[in-house]
Amino acid sequence: MSRTIPVVEKITRANDQIAAMNRKRLDENGLFALNLMASPGAGKTSLIERSVPLLSERFRIGVIEGDIATTLDADRAEAAGAASVQINAASCHLDAPMVRQGLDALDLETLDLIIVENVGNLVCPAGWELGTHRQVLVASVPEGDDKPYKYPSMYRGVDALVINKIDLLPYLTFDMERFREGVEALNEGVLTFPLSCQTGEGLEAWIEWIAEETGKR
Amino acid sequence: MSRTIPVVEKITRANDQIAAMNRKRLDENGLFALNLMASPGAGKTSLIERSVPLLSERFRIGVIEGDIATTLDADRAEAAGAASVQINAASCHLDAPMVRQGLDALDLETLDLIIVENVGNLVCPAGWELGTHRQVLVASVPEGDDKPYKYPSMYRGVDALVINKIDLLPYLTFDMERFREGVEALNEGVLTFPLSCQTGEGLEAWIEWIAEETGKR
Repeated sequence: MSRTIPVVEKITRANDQIAAMNRKRLDENGLFALNLMASPGAGKTSLIERSVPLLSERFRIGVIEGDIATTLDADRAEAAGAASVQINAASCHLDAPMVRQGLDALDLETLDLIIVENVGNLVCPAGWELGTHRQVLVASVPEGDDKPYKYPSMYRGVDALVINKIDLLPYLTFDMERFREGVEALNEGVLTFPLSCQTGEGLEAWIEWIAEETGKR
Repeated sequence: MSRTIPVVEKITRANDQIAAMNRKRLDENGLFALNLMASPGAGKTSLIERSVPLLSERFRIGVIEGDIATTLDADRAEAAGAASVQINAASCHLDAPMVRQGLDALDLETLDLIIVENVGNLVCPAGWELGTHRQVLVASVPEGDDKPYKYPSMYRGVDALVINKIDLLPYLTFDMERFREGVEALNEGVLTFPLSCQTGEGLEAWIEWIAEETGKR
C-alpha cells in the first residue's frame, strides 16, 4: 500500500496549513482551545459535562463535538451550559478543516474557551493537528495499565493527561506505578490529572489548569 | 478530501480479494477463524488468555496479534498456551494482507482455531474484511451504554458481541436495557455473551459457541 503515502502526505500538509489558520483565528479572538482525545468511553463527554459548570462563571465556553453518529454528546455539552456545535465526522478522527467548520458555526467573539472533543480513538487523532493550543488525552483506569506501552504515539504527543474513573481503582487490577512509568518514558514530565467524573474527586486541579491557561489569553 | 476516495476504494477492493484468499486457505486447512475487535482496553487479550486454556484440550489454537507497538499481547497469548504471532500493524486496523502474513507465520496444519486480535479501535477495523469466519466485538461496560449509538458501523457488522467486565456493573451507571436496545436496533438478534474475564462469570456460553463453530470445520 505504499502508493497511498504521497496522497496522505499531501493531505497532512494541507491539514497543517489549515490548522495554522485555525490557530491564528483563535489567537486573534483571544481564545484558548483544547483538543480532548481518548478511547471510546474514557469519559471525554463526562469531563466536559463536569467542567463546563465549574468554568462558566469565569469563562464563556464553546464546545466542538466530533461524532460519527448522533448528537448525544453535543446535547450533553449544551445541557451543561456551553455553546455547542456538532461535526458529523464520518471519519476516525477530526482534522483541521472539520474544526474550521466548527469555528465557523460558533460566535467566536462571545467566547473565551473552546473545547474540541475528538472522535473516540486512541490511534488516528494523534496524527492530525487541529490548531488547538493544548492536546489532552483522557485515559481511564478500566482500560488497563498497559495502554501507554501499546498506544505510544497518542501518549507521546499530548500536553496533559487526565486519568479518569479513579473511583473504580478498588475494583480493578490497575497498577498505577506501571502506568505512570509507561507515560514518563514517552512523555517526561507531562501534566497528569487523576480524577473521577463520577465522584468529582480531583477535578479541582484540572479546572484550575484550564482556568489559568484561558486567563493568559 | 474527496480526491482520496478512488485510492481508498482501490485498496479496499484489493483487500477484499486477499481476504477471500485468506478464507479459502483457512477452509482448505479445516480451520475456524475469529476476528476480535474492540476499543483499547475492552479486554480482547484478557478474553484470549481466559479462553485459550478452556479450549486447548479440544482444539489447537493459533493467535494473530495486531499491535501498534510491543509484543505484550502476543506474549500473553503464548503464555496462555496458544501458538502466537505478532503483526506490528503500524496502522489503526488490521487488513487482509497483514492477516495473510500472520497465516504465513503459523503452521496451519497443526491448528484448528485461529483467533485474530485486531488493533484496539472502535472505528477503523469495521471497514476491513480479513477473511475470518466470524467477526466479534468485545464491548466493556465501563465504556458506557451509549456506545452502540455512537459507533454504529462496528456494532452493525458483527456476528457476536461479548459484553465484558460485568463484575463492574454494581459500580457503574450502565443501563443494560438502553445498551441492548441500541445493539438490537443495529444488529437484530446478534449473539451476545455478557461475561467477566476477571471473575470468569459467563465464560461458559462463549466457550461453547466457539467450540461448536470450530467443531463444524
